[in-house]
Amino acid sequence: MTPAFTLGVDYGTNSVRAVVVDCRDGRIVGTRVFQYPSGDQGVLLDSRDPHLARQRPADYLEGLRASVTGALQDATRDDDFTIERVIGIGVDTTGSTPMPVDGHNRALGLDPKWAGHLAAQAWLWKDHTGAEEAAAITAIAARYAPEYLAPIGGTYSSEWFWSKIWRCLKAAPDVFDAAYSWVELADYIPAALAGITHPRDIQRCICAAGHKAIYSETWGGLPSKAFLARLDPKLAGLRDRLFDKAYAADRPAGRLCAEWASALGLREGIVIAMGAFDAHYGAVGAGVRTGTLVKIIGTSTCDCAIAPAPGEIQNVPGICGIVNGSIMPGYFGIEAGQSAVGDLLKWWVERICEGDDALHAELTNSAARLRPGESGLVALDWNNGNRTILVDPRLSGLIVGQTLHTNRAEMYRALIEATAFGARAIVERLTEYGVPVDRVVCCGGIAEKNDLFMQIYADVLGHPMLTAGSPQTPALGAAASAAVAAGAAVGGHASFAAAQAAMTRVGERQFLTNTGARRVYDDLYGIYRELHDAFGGVPGADADLATTMKRLLSIRERAIAH
Amino acid sequence: MTPAFTLGVDYGTNSVRAVVVDCRDGRIVGTRVFQYPSGDQGVLLDSRDPHLARQRPADYLEGLRASVTGALQDATRDDDFTIERVIGIGVDTTGSTPMPVDGHNRALGLDPKWAGHLAAQAWLWKDHTGAEEAAAITAIAARYAPEYLAPIGGTYSSEWFWSKIWRCLKAAPDVFDAAYSWVELADYIPAALAGITHPRDIQRCICAAGHKAIYSETWGGLPSKAFLARLDPKLAGLRDRLFDKAYAADRPAGRLCAEWASALGLREGIVIAMGAFDAHYGAVGAGVRTGTLVKIIGTSTCDCAIAPAPGEIQNVPGICGIVNGSIMPGYFGIEAGQSAVGDLLKWWVERICEGDDALHAELTNSAARLRPGESGLVALDWNNGNRTILVDPRLSGLIVGQTLHTNRAEMYRALIEATAFGARAIVERLTEYGVPVDRVVCCGGIAEKNDLFMQIYADVLGHPMLTAGSPQTPALGAAASAAVAAGAAVGGHASFAAAQAAMTRVGERQFLTNTGARRVYDDLYGIYRELHDAFGGVPGADADLATTMKRLLSIRERAIAH
Repeated sequence: MTPAFTLGVDYGTNSVRAVVVDCRDGRIVGTRVFQYPSGDQGVLLDSRDPHLARQRPADYLEGLRASVTGALQDATRDDDFTIERVIGIGVDTTGSTPMPVDGHNRALGLDPKWAGHLAAQAWLWKDHTGAEEAAAITAIAARYAPEYLAPIGGTYSSEWFWSKIWRCLKAAPDVFDAAYSWVELADYIPAALAGITHPRDIQRCICAAGHKAIYSETWGGLPSKAFLARLDPKLAGLRDRLFDKAYAADRPAGRLCAEWASALGLREGIVIAMGAFDAHYGAVGAGVRTGTLVKIIGTSTCDCAIAPAPGEIQNVPGICGIVNGSIMPGYFGIEAGQSAVGDLLKWWVERICEGDDALHAELTNSAARLRPGESGLVALDWNNGNRTILVDPRLSGLIVGQTLHTNRAEMYRALIEATAFGARAIVERLTEYGVPVDRVVCCGGIAEKNDLFMQIYADVLGHPMLTAGSPQTPALGAAASAAVAAGAAVGGHASFAAAQAAMTRVGERQFLTNTGARRVYDDLYGIYRELHDAFGGVPGADADLATTMKRLLSIRERAIAH
Repeated sequence: MTPAFTLGVDYGTNSVRAVVVDCRDGRIVGTRVFQYPSGDQGVLLDSRDPHLARQRPADYLEGLRASVTGALQDATRDDDFTIERVIGIGVDTTGSTPMPVDGHNRALGLDPKWAGHLAAQAWLWKDHTGAEEAAAITAIAARYAPEYLAPIGGTYSSEWFWSKIWRCLKAAPDVFDAAYSWVELADYIPAALAGITHPRDIQRCICAAGHKAIYSETWGGLPSKAFLARLDPKLAGLRDRLFDKAYAADRPAGRLCAEWASALGLREGIVIAMGAFDAHYGAVGAGVRTGTLVKIIGTSTCDCAIAPAPGEIQNVPGICGIVNGSIMPGYFGIEAGQSAVGDLLKWWVERICEGDDALHAELTNSAARLRPGESGLVALDWNNGNRTILVDPRLSGLIVGQTLHTNRAEMYRALIEATAFGARAIVERLTEYGVPVDRVVCCGGIAEKNDLFMQIYADVLGHPMLTAGSPQTPALGAAASAAVAAGAAVGGHASFAAAQAAMTRVGERQFLTNTGARRVYDDLYGIYRELHDAFGGVPGADADLATTMKRLLSIRERAIAH
């Protein structure tokens, strides 16, 4: 079998990474990371507004050239690698990260006239300047188009497409007027590689459209002009300059144009896979399949699952998004998430204990010596609100059960457990509504490095916990998608399942459920769930608070006596 | 007016302090502290049993001689002072701290035969070896003599008289059999000074008997022989060798005997005031009167109030003890308390933040810069259970409202506020049952040193907070009691009120309620009280938990906007 290689290009918040992957076995033969040169680690800030976070489009294009050529150069050291054997490119990015473009599909931020204007740059996923607009969209949709809210759990976010564009219209109308259209970064890069020179010709991915832009074939694509006109007539006008249809990754975004082929030193005409968000291609790279939940664990988590389409999956209450084809063609892509996981532990270590990475390690070691239940504590993991399944940013943290002897390591463990309980609540909600989950794959530094964390999850969830086996699952998933787009005939793969089987390394490390620990955690989860439902305002919540503390003490006493 | 002086002798956990006080104005003209030489800072421990805490009677007697002679020596530097002008001695001690004595009223622990036996020593207040016995006493009383439990809030404590004696009977029957009787330290020292040589001749104070030994005239003194026989027939036998009647401090405990007069260098025959617990004479020294609640704030608090007797005061649910004459003759003495105050802040600083006194100061400074409500936090002050008004040691801590930005100073302030809310719950319970409270006097290091603490209490309670003006209120109260026992004719005082007016310095520092802060704290206390009642198991508790976190956020937003 002739060797073939694909490129995966992963646009993160602070840098872009390119990898060259062997399609036969997923071996990464070349890699290069490019740090965005502008702003604060690549993010343009505004000292007058902490909610603002933008990026310079020029950083993306310079990063594309530098990371890909660097990775290719790296790959030349591999005996099997030649430039001719590169058969495709896949791209994943942060999102929703839309940017205004002109009528030639050129990012407005690249135009010297607009280079100094923050509103003309890319609006990074974590830009929250559109909070007011998000609230208004939620309110107006609740009244006039509740169907728009059902698949996103009832609340439109300030991080998403329309909030940002509407905000631009209000705060910087000159930029809005100068823009012919708006494009997600996940669509912009593939379109640039393909040399597409008109925004209407861009192949837009269903992943960004469906999860962030209120796109669904159910209601004929994007939100209706009538609805958008209720926000602002100019948004209704913009609708004609966006797109009618968005696509799953079962079709390519285009073919590599001469200009970029030359810039990257690649063959013209190789396939460009449909773009996607990092979490979605990350899920592919982490072996997502029916029954596998992928958790991308960082400051927060993004949880991805799929279920065969067409099928029985309805809207799952409190789940952020369910979009046909968004993660993998032929499946419903399901997105959930926890608002604070790494951030919760970071809060404890840095804000409360005023420590650093060494203290994380020390507390992990101490916490690992505790038995389940021994701390006598239960916490709610809501210091940053609850993204799934309550979808309520106005919730906050709670810790109960502390005595005068409770120490910082016990609290640290209780916070890890709280995130595991939150994860279990999501899994239970998914399975309750017909999305099967029988194993969980975790990606990210915490999953790779913190065995205690993984074991607690295995014991709380009652499912095996697997690590993804690669620190670069998004880039790997993008490369796998490119291999599918290229096809088996040229050394790629005939399907995502085939590409995953060949190219991913999931589960080299597994954490199995300890049944004794599981039993203790069943009790603790019961208490967590009572508090979760009571403080989360779940109708019919029935918490026996008068016995909460006594039950925690009993669990603790049994753990110590054990 | 001829100057007259009294001695106040205060037996603490680690040392005994003697002061010489001018009866005219409360000036302390001599003072001496004696550290108990035995054990760990005066406490005999058992490495096999962390609940054990005993003290050597010889330390008490040696401490009496050393502290009093030292204080007198110190006093000689005062121009007005002469030994002839010392008109009486008052003693206060920790309690319940009973010890076995022989038929000559000699502490068994002084006998060389028993000197090495821990059970033959004094059983210090914080000895918890009788936990099982306390639970049995509670259970048996609940069944056969519920009236015994009503005045003590429903639960007999392992720290109290009968738990300890019964424990001794079971664990060290030889010691029990060798003891003729048992005497509280608060009675033992005055009896020793008076040269009393038979236990039946000791004048026992109502304060120890009423609060710790289930003594009440309502049921004819100590618990009935029938009841005690249900515990153990030998306890019924002991009843005859204890006492029939206990007295308020309106009569002396005796007159100084020749032997101790010689040992101390004092005139034989001067009056020995009735003994009392440190908290009770502390309340006298802190100006307790109708309407004044005295809070002795240390690791925990002891709250003391009085109400005219005979009067309308019934048993107040959840209040530890109400005993006629226990704090001041002619009044009901009312005792309440919070299980953790200083300890709660110490927990946060030492166990969680792993800091020291400097960090206490730093967090106090940072917390003082916060507005009421700004932290968005509410905590329950139950890390060591709840002594009053729920009387439930199996409750634990709770903190709610934390975000990823919550810092250690905000938590520190929330914990101070939690103790203030706990204090308010006690005051509300007292006033609800007819015990008036219109000002609060605080004693102890925290009250004297931490203005933030005092201001928060003033704002939460809605009453002026006064400091006691002396770091030695128990010794001062004991000296005042001696002045009353000696009488006005010899330079003492005709009544406790007269003695307090002349000899105490309450309220030199006052903290007044800020009405704006009061309004915010009314809201926060409402949330505290909902959580208190729900988690505390108060029948009919009605907590709107679904809005708890949102209300905290709103309070926080208003505080910041203010």
